[in-house]
Amino acid sequence: MTVEAYLAGREAEAIQTLMAYCRIPSVSTDPAFAEGIAQAAAFVADQLRHAGFPTVEQVPTAGHPCVFAEWIVDPAKPTVLIYGHYDVQPPDPLDKWRVPPFDPVVKDDRIWARGVSDDKGPMLIPILVAAAYGAVNGAPPLNLKVLFEGEEESGSPNFEPTVAAMKDRLACDLVLSADGAMWRADLPSMTVATRGMAAVEVTVTGAGKDLHSGRHGGTAPNPIRALARMMASLHDEAGDVAVPGFDDGARQPDPAISRAIVEVGFDAPGYFDSIGADHPDPMPTGEALLTRQWLKPTLEFNGISGGYQGTGTKTVIPSEASVKITCRLVAGQDPDQVMTAIEAHLATVLPSGYRMDVHRHGPGTHAFALDPHLPALATAEGVLAEVLGAKPLRVAMGATVPIGDVFARQLGVGAIFFSFATSDEDYHAPNEYFRLSSFRTGQVAWARLLDRLAHGGI
Amino acid sequence: MTVEAYLAGREAEAIQTLMAYCRIPSVSTDPAFAEGIAQAAAFVADQLRHAGFPTVEQVPTAGHPCVFAEWIVDPAKPTVLIYGHYDVQPPDPLDKWRVPPFDPVVKDDRIWARGVSDDKGPMLIPILVAAAYGAVNGAPPLNLKVLFEGEEESGSPNFEPTVAAMKDRLACDLVLSADGAMWRADLPSMTVATRGMAAVEVTVTGAGKDLHSGRHGGTAPNPIRALARMMASLHDEAGDVAVPGFDDGARQPDPAISRAIVEVGFDAPGYFDSIGADHPDPMPTGEALLTRQWLKPTLEFNGISGGYQGTGTKTVIPSEASVKITCRLVAGQDPDQVMTAIEAHLATVLPSGYRMDVHRHGPGTHAFALDPHLPALATAEGVLAEVLGAKPLRVAMGATVPIGDVFARQLGVGAIFFSFATSDEDYHAPNEYFRLSSFRTGQVAWARLLDRLAHGGI
Repeated sequence: MTVEAYLAGREAEAIQTLMAYCRIPSVSTDPAFAEGIAQAAAFVADQLRHAGFPTVEQVPTAGHPCVFAEWIVDPAKPTVLIYGHYDVQPPDPLDKWRVPPFDPVVKDDRIWARGVSDDKGPMLIPILVAAAYGAVNGAPPLNLKVLFEGEEESGSPNFEPTVAAMKDRLACDLVLSADGAMWRADLPSMTVATRGMAAVEVTVTGAGKDLHSGRHGGTAPNPIRALARMMASLHDEAGDVAVPGFDDGARQPDPAISRAIVEVGFDAPGYFDSIGADHPDPMPTGEALLTRQWLKPTLEFNGISGGYQGTGTKTVIPSEASVKITCRLVAGQDPDQVMTAIEAHLATVLPSGYRMDVHRHGPGTHAFALDPHLPALATAEGVLAEVLGAKPLRVAMGATVPIGDVFARQLGVGAIFFSFATSDEDYHAPNEYFRLSSFRTGQVAWARLLDRLAHGGI
Repeated sequence: MTVEAYLAGREAEAIQTLMAYCRIPSVSTDPAFAEGIAQAAAFVADQLRHAGFPTVEQVPTAGHPCVFAEWIVDPAKPTVLIYGHYDVQPPDPLDKWRVPPFDPVVKDDRIWARGVSDDKGPMLIPILVAAAYGAVNGAPPLNLKVLFEGEEESGSPNFEPTVAAMKDRLACDLVLSADGAMWRADLPSMTVATRGMAAVEVTVTGAGKDLHSGRHGGTAPNPIRALARMMASLHDEAGDVAVPGFDDGARQPDPAISRAIVEVGFDAPGYFDSIGADHPDPMPTGEALLTRQWLKPTLEFNGISGGYQGTGTKTVIPSEASVKITCRLVAGQDPDQVMTAIEAHLATVLPSGYRMDVHRHGPGTHAFALDPHLPALATAEGVLAEVLGAKPLRVAMGATVPIGDVFARQLGVGAIFFSFATSDEDYHAPNEYFRLSSFRTGQVAWARLLDRLAHGGI
């Protein structure tokens, strides 16, 4: 029996395993879900043991643990380190879900659940493939190491220190990431660049307590008003970031990616239709939009809060208001410098009579760009061409996958994004799903990729 | 025994009654508290029956019921209509309370509870006084009518229609309001003008669903960004409202109030200290601040909400964001016109590609100014001078008490604010309290006022 036939014969069982995994609410950003994080780490470790990895360990960090595993077949063979994450995004807003976020449903050849696309489905694939190699051949075709983290959705604050501390044990020839996403369901692609991230929360305080808007209206500091004015100064009329020093160090993008942007013929009106938004006037070109998504830094407001949040009205002037900000960074921008620039700019526009706190959510992440001449990249492209029917485009990704940069600096190796999630799967929104076709194809592709890498393709 | 001695002998019982009243969570703005509203209306009706009012009725409205009562002593005597409200502000933010909002605590000669100062303590006083007159003299010294509403904290959307429908039954010579507040604990004052109100909620929508800020950052509409820019256009640099047409019709204030503003010597640095705010630079004059509080219209943001509200970060571009706005109006401004002007202005600054909804919370309230030559005003000032030791100043109030304008238009009579709340009692904030000294003094004052009005002072 071949490894691929073995996998095909166990599809129902694999789906059950994925559903059990998705029942665990492993939200990393909210301490209320600590129990779910612990359960998910244990679940992943169990799956790795069950697959046949001789060494499986939970690695403590300053935050949530990593799961490490190792299956050394022959020191003379190449070694691949597989990356993924077992934590998921928060399920809010709960009232927008058509299915319960942590009670998976199979429907329309998809599994619906929080985290199924990002990253539980894609990261389960290499475990299943290793198990199949073990069952059919007694061992995988090359040495495997695994490092799964539990804080990817929190900006991976403890991931780089963990990799640095485990440098020797993680030594490898190549990293394969089961995280990331194909850009479009109908267009095979390989992601060779990802944006970095910096996250801050800005809190503006006026009075020491909430005040009556009748008694104090017009004289007391209103932190919502101050915050709105400050926020309005962060972008220019065109929507570009207007923070001095924000772009410092940004490098020109790889011309290959700019060519891909032209090649794919991005449909601008179709884009706004797909997200359910009105068409802006004037309509930007598709190339301008895709350039913004892939190659421009951003400063986005993710949440704002202050004062009365209930139904109806409350005539109050709140004591404080706050906004959560994340920036996507391009190659060359330094996250620390970006956060410093934002804080410095906000300090200059903070009105007199208010206090401000800028809290950094972690150290941030540099953008990543893969060496276009890496042999393993061509190998992976070959496998994708076989299973998907067309040579994949080399594309960039707007989202942030911190590991590319971390592994390059800490281990000196390249990281190939070999994920079978697709970016339309609502993975940071309600009603996340994962295509079962991708789950099947992904297992075939990983089985072939490990074999090719074992036989000279690395 | 005198009425005043009777009241003094029942102080402990009166405090118990007030505490029982404050245990009822009668929040009018939030449907979750419907049961508390019903309980409070029944409680008030019971107290009125217990006091001896021969007629007590709950009057249905399109919203929460009013409580009406009548005690006609002699048709030849003058008739006073007493106003108050049994609903309270929402208790949010709950985590800022040092005592449970609906489990009253007596401490430092104060009662601490949501609604105790606004308006449960002050409105209980005339009921206790009527009961004392009944017990001591068999009846009050003049005809009493009572109308208590349950939607004052929601902008009284159904109060004027109710008064209009009951015009004949409410006929009277004077309205005495148990709602309102003394301006300062150490300075006797009579409120002769109050600001009006208009309340709207603005919701801006971008995409039809929440989006991943990595995938879509830089291209998708971000309604928080749009809303912040729109909000920033509502005030000028000096903090004055910058909405065209907002001030239309505003009249010059009564010079007597402007004189009082000079007379009271408002302490600007002390004001900012009292609310726990940093000193602005430059520091405005005390007169400028008090003129803003009493005689200028405002546009204040009371609550803002959009996107992720939990701990940590969530890399989402939300579908919508909204802000709650209330405006305080001065004499001559029309609430309907003010809301129309705001909506029209926001429509001009709404960026392309976004949708906007402006929801009006009720029809709004005109500002109110009392006739300075009303004989009952001099009578009330005389009583206050006796019980408080100094002739009260005639002041304006930043807050909104819709009834002055309603009674003037519907019943053709003046309304005197005879409340013993004090504006420092945090009545729209956590840790609301009511001074027991005010509770005692208020009973003496109401007893004397009813007697004087019965004997020629009206």
